[in-house]
Amino acid sequence: MSEKKASKFDFETFLRKTFKTPLDWLANRLLKLGITPNHITLFGLVGNIGAAILIALDHLQWGGLVAALMAPLDAVDGAMARLRGNPSLFGAFFDSVIDRYDELILLGALIYHFYKQADLTGVALTFLAAMGSVLVSYTRARAEGLGLDAKTGILTRIERAIILIIGLLFAKPIYSVGIIAILANITAIQRICQVWQQSKAE
Amino acid sequence: MSEKKASKFDFETFLRKTFKTPLDWLANRLLKLGITPNHITLFGLVGNIGAAILIALDHLQWGGLVAALMAPLDAVDGAMARLRGNPSLFGAFFDSVIDRYDELILLGALIYHFYKQADLTGVALTFLAAMGSVLVSYTRARAEGLGLDAKTGILTRIERAIILIIGLLFAKPIYSVGIIAILANITAIQRICQVWQQSKAE
Repeated sequence: MSEKKASKFDFETFLRKTFKTPLDWLANRLLKLGITPNHITLFGLVGNIGAAILIALDHLQWGGLVAALMAPLDAVDGAMARLRGNPSLFGAFFDSVIDRYDELILLGALIYHFYKQADLTGVALTFLAAMGSVLVSYTRARAEGLGLDAKTGILTRIERAIILIIGLLFAKPIYSVGIIAILANITAIQRICQVWQQSKAE
Repeated sequence: MSEKKASKFDFETFLRKTFKTPLDWLANRLLKLGITPNHITLFGLVGNIGAAILIALDHLQWGGLVAALMAPLDAVDGAMARLRGNPSLFGAFFDSVIDRYDELILLGALIYHFYKQADLTGVALTFLAAMGSVLVSYTRARAEGLGLDAKTGILTRIERAIILIIGLLFAKPIYSVGIIAILANITAIQRICQVWQQSKAE
């Protein structure tokens, strides 16, 4: 049952394979400079805080640009950890947790943006997008803690980031949060069903 | 290192021990009626949605009362699962995931309440409280998925629920979300540090 993910198209794996050569080149250079994967994760957090400040100041497109520059770093730290050949448990944990902060900080800035415009729909959809996004990640983490598996679903982290960034770059974030609000919550429910089926099979 | 939690005062364990007799009595009666722990978890979700609707309609104290009636159910389903002697992986997963929905639905209703009052501080603190709360739960789940442990911290779920309910019952939710916004985020950072120390020791 836990092989379901292997047969499914995985956009993140596709991107990692497609950009493996430049990614490994960059990861190697950074490692030689004495930079660790955790440094890159932290740098990404600082960059996303910068993007959030730009969004809060209503510079949506600049915020989207900075967020777009930070997004590939999540693949860079992973490549560095792999090349270093010494995968650290803390690195994997820290990367996941900071991903959640990155995502929630950007969505928090958007709530402020919509609040200032007295856009209740925007505030509500952004909150629902935040709720769905964290539940997609939480369901997977909780399932893994129980020795189960919940990776499937139509809207994992990288798709959410891309949808959000495109909406920011076009200065139409309402569409992004609307899509994420619907699809992320569906993904969370998909994962609940996946865990239910696995536990029935045990 | 993972014994740290045992030496620490755990409010949830204290409550469970103190109310063990009535809890087990109630759990036994419910089991005899053919009710399962998952039914109780779902009933709690429906009740919390009701509380959220009351909060969204600005009936904060009624919302707090309903949320206060739902809160002990989280101990009831646990007691039922224990008494049934057949702990289900899905039950543990479902209980945790629905806890996150319960919490976020109540906080989402509060964001709407503060939005209508044009209370930016309220909106911001509620979002920060939601962010801290999910990160407290996420750090623990993610750590457990990696075989580590992150249960410590000053503001686990039951304390958050009590703080929120007290604020609602006094119709002063701004204090609750302010306290949760600060302490939940500190707890999340405590757990990141706990995982860091464990991974250093490995």
